[in-house]
Amino acid sequence: MKKPKWVVKKEKDEKNSQKQTYWMFGLHAVRDALVNQNRKKFRLMTTKNAAVKLSESISVSGMIPEIFDTREFKPPIDKNSVHQGAVLEVESLKWGSLDDLIMNSINNPIRLILLDQVMDPHNVGAILRSAEVFGASAVVGTKIHSPSETGALAKSASGALERQPYIRIRNLADTLLHLKKMGFICIGLDEKAENTLPDIQDISSRPTALVFGSEGSGLRLRTKQTVEFLVKVPFTTDFGSLNVSNAAAVAFFQLQELSKNSI
Amino acid sequence: MKKPKWVVKKEKDEKNSQKQTYWMFGLHAVRDALVNQNRKKFRLMTTKNAAVKLSESISVSGMIPEIFDTREFKPPIDKNSVHQGAVLEVESLKWGSLDDLIMNSINNPIRLILLDQVMDPHNVGAILRSAEVFGASAVVGTKIHSPSETGALAKSASGALERQPYIRIRNLADTLLHLKKMGFICIGLDEKAENTLPDIQDISSRPTALVFGSEGSGLRLRTKQTVEFLVKVPFTTDFGSLNVSNAAAVAFFQLQELSKNSI
Repeated sequence: MKKPKWVVKKEKDEKNSQKQTYWMFGLHAVRDALVNQNRKKFRLMTTKNAAVKLSESISVSGMIPEIFDTREFKPPIDKNSVHQGAVLEVESLKWGSLDDLIMNSINNPIRLILLDQVMDPHNVGAILRSAEVFGASAVVGTKIHSPSETGALAKSASGALERQPYIRIRNLADTLLHLKKMGFICIGLDEKAENTLPDIQDISSRPTALVFGSEGSGLRLRTKQTVEFLVKVPFTTDFGSLNVSNAAAVAFFQLQELSKNSI
Repeated sequence: MKKPKWVVKKEKDEKNSQKQTYWMFGLHAVRDALVNQNRKKFRLMTTKNAAVKLSESISVSGMIPEIFDTREFKPPIDKNSVHQGAVLEVESLKWGSLDDLIMNSINNPIRLILLDQVMDPHNVGAILRSAEVFGASAVVGTKIHSPSETGALAKSASGALERQPYIRIRNLADTLLHLKKMGFICIGLDEKAENTLPDIQDISSRPTALVFGSEGSGLRLRTKQTVEFLVKVPFTTDFGSLNVSNAAAVAFFQLQELSKNSI
């Protein structure tokens, strides 16, 4: 008897999901993944030197590393990757749904960072670090135009990927509409806007979603139409523009300062 | 008669300096270099498509581009470089000495960003953009442990390299001592510091130098001993840390906010 289609699909999905591992590299990323109990880990390859530096985290993880002489260390990753002698095969983290993250967040008010086609893993990695430092409940990208978890993203996130929720949703504008219904102020960052964050009433106390666009083209039209406010980072001139991760860090810092001052 | 040594050296230096060109790539970087009259430019290679996008700047520059079909466009740069169809051979800019930059700066008070072994061109490029946006008079690296002008730096700086003075000095601590004598407050950014920028008296009105260390090891000991204050970016936790360009953007933004509020 032929298997029903849904069984075939389910088995295929399971098979695919089993295959979805990638190699992390770099001491920071590998160290923080080793001590993260929620992270599924498969193989750890290190140089002798890196094994010493990581000895505590290796011990916590319970993994048995494959240790190599530096000359013989040829990990299965791109040659140009700055691996610092340590690579770790892992599965992507499963953070659950945005609603779950919001319900379970201990931050008050809740702050979210949404990415509108920010694709460069270095920028997204840096944004994850800022999100962790300034206390965002999640960084939200889109399934198609945001980077998935990769070694390059993990390296740029420098450990923040283990602790800072990063999820990818199907459609950004739909998610913004959903967030608005839940009471979030949705704010797009736009160099050409006239207002800045302090101009928005109640921003210090209400749940807030900040949306950042790609460097090339900024926010998409539908995103601009869906957010309630467009604001800019102060001081921006006609000439210069900030790197998107720097703009995100400054905006998020400014938001937290406003909340702090209002207490 | 044999030439005196100093003549040989001078001729050699001149010959070397003539050779010091590099290839810029990427639409933003190339466009802004084309319209910069202070930038010495040699060869411009583009795709047909990029030539159209750059037509105004090419016209301003007076250059005659070598235009290729996209398939035949094989510029003499690293294959992984995201050139967007445009590369430009240029000479590094000569900004003169730090003293000259300070004397000629129109910013009041003067703000400087100093880099203590920040070597990643992507980070330095992003810092140049923030420096331009927030009005720094110069970004100052060291000759040995800061990136020289390269295509990767120019690409990350996204045009800011044309307008934001970037110089490299021999010794950072000596330069800090010199700046202190000139009346600058010299401040090192350090995650472990207790104070933040607003804790420093007169900071809104005095010339200020902010010093940032490398991500791996932070400020060097002599740098820490030479600055007058160590401060941290607020909100930083035991876990997370900011990407150095993000830390620089936030600190510089905070500094400008303090000056604005004090007017």
